[in-house]
Amino acid sequence: MKFFSQPFLIKYSDTDQMGIVHHSNYFKYFENARIAWLRHLGVSYKKIEEDGILMPVVSASIEFIIPLYFDDEITIEITLTELPKATLSFEYKIKNQINQLVCRGKTKLAFLNSKTMKPLRVPKKIYDLFSDEFM
Amino acid sequence: MKFFSQPFLIKYSDTDQMGIVHHSNYFKYFENARIAWLRHLGVSYKKIEEDGILMPVVSASIEFIIPLYFDDEITIEITLTELPKATLSFEYKIKNQINQLVCRGKTKLAFLNSKTMKPLRVPKKIYDLFSDEFM
Amino acid sequence: MKFFSQPFLIKYSDTDQMGIVHHSNYFKYFENARIAWLRHLGVSYKKIEEDGILMPVVSASIEFIIPLYFDDEITIEITLTELPKATLSFEYKIKNQINQLVCRGKTKLAFLNSKTMKPLRVPKKIYDLFSDEFM
Amino acid sequence: MKFFSQPFLIKYSDTDQMGIVHHSNYFKYFENARIAWLRHLGVSYKKIEEDGILMPVVSASIEFIIPLYFDDEITIEITLTELPKATLSFEYKIKNQINQLVCRGKTKLAFLNSKTMKPLRVPKKIYDLFSDEFM
Repeated sequence: MKFFSQPFLIKYSDTDQMGIVHHSNYFKYFENARIAWLRHLGVSYKKIEEDGILMPVVSASIEFIIPLYFDDEITIEITLTELPKATLSFEYKIKNQINQLVCRGKTKLAFLNSKTMKPLRVPKKIYDLFSDEFM
Repeated sequence: MKFFSQPFLIKYSDTDQMGIVHHSNYFKYFENARIAWLRHLGVSYKKIEEDGILMPVVSASIEFIIPLYFDDEITIEITLTELPKATLSFEYKIKNQINQLVCRGKTKLAFLNSKTMKPLRVPKKIYDLFSDEFM
Repeated sequence: MKFFSQPFLIKYSDTDQMGIVHHSNYFKYFENARIAWLRHLGVSYKKIEEDGILMPVVSASIEFIIPLYFDDEITIEITLTELPKATLSFEYKIKNQINQLVCRGKTKLAFLNSKTMKPLRVPKKIYDLFSDEFM
Repeated sequence: MKFFSQPFLIKYSDTDQMGIVHHSNYFKYFENARIAWLRHLGVSYKKIEEDGILMPVVSASIEFIIPLYFDDEITIEITLTELPKATLSFEYKIKNQINQLVCRGKTKLAFLNSKTMKPLRVPKKIYDLFSDEFM
């Protein structure tokens, strides 16, 4: 039910003049972790979009605990927190190279038909996959 | 108590391959609105940092209602929601050119000593300014 | 033949831990200036894409002279440097609030059919418009 | 003399609505490759900055050959093209997962004293390291 993304190094261009990672970038890290998790489960998000489905973020939140710095090595723990319904709910924890908890976050994603931009039911393949994951 | 940022056009580079603004960028728009509001109140955030104070975001959340597209013209409404304490709490609403509510967001900011990176009390000048604003 | 974009303020999130604007962002400023120029000539780049034409950058270069800082107010001068052919060639100069030359840049753009991603001749409407502009 | 960065996957947030990577992001990839190369040579760019030296980009250019897409796996070849003098000159080639040449780029970097923001001679340690590398 939990997935840990590959550790990666914080990029220079993700910092701002405060000398730390700009807060907006954490949502990109969460996104990368979701895509990595899907890949780990055998699902290509690229392929999902090619099949006409978009998965936009419909809500997001984050609580920052300690800053991230350039060259920090981070790992993201991602958890599916509910059985897939109209939306997918995820939670995230980022830890740094000395295993400190950096932040906690949540996002909710919807399924849209990419032609009509209208909401879709969760596709059966994803439902089955994530239900298994959830058990 | 409410401030409306100058309307501005959504930049091409803020979109992603979904054809809409990437969700991480909204937090940059909120930040720009905060800085514009400070400027409107006669406070330069640049000067605050030069005086040794940082104001990092310590929590943030957003609920997306409709997407933003390239070339949309948006206005941001920003509200200080509490009397300044250890943190500053803001709420945001973004509206597009046809006055649709695009999203609602919240952020909380702390005050840090830029030398020590330790929390600071809210500086008196900002307390007074924002208290007035809050009344 | 020259166009000066509206002055605008450098955003906090465009800085990096060097305390100056990250060099990659200048190409976004150039892009914004191109789109503003098109708009000034009565052309919506959004509409161009809706009509099935993409205008990707095929080459770009920049020479940095002095840094840009958060809250600097910049103006971009953009010039079409050749009669439109298979590509469009632009030059840029960015000046800051005290009229210092910040950088010089160039970009070349192609026209692609958005369905096939194959090169297109310059659309007649744009050719006529830019030829006039060039005289 | 040549260094090949670790392959990595293109992130979703690096795309724009053209469905390809926004051209500004390639300069971030080049930067990441430089920093990886330094690390490979036993030099931490983080440490260089902590020692009071900044290495800003003073010129950059790129020629795009084929687009990069979300989820492409790229490798960056980076070459130091001159003996270190007042500046460092690098060339880059990006290749995708099927070994196609994606783009060619160049950057030149200077050395600045981070206190004064004045140019520095190339630090002896870096001169020696890069001279060896160059031979």
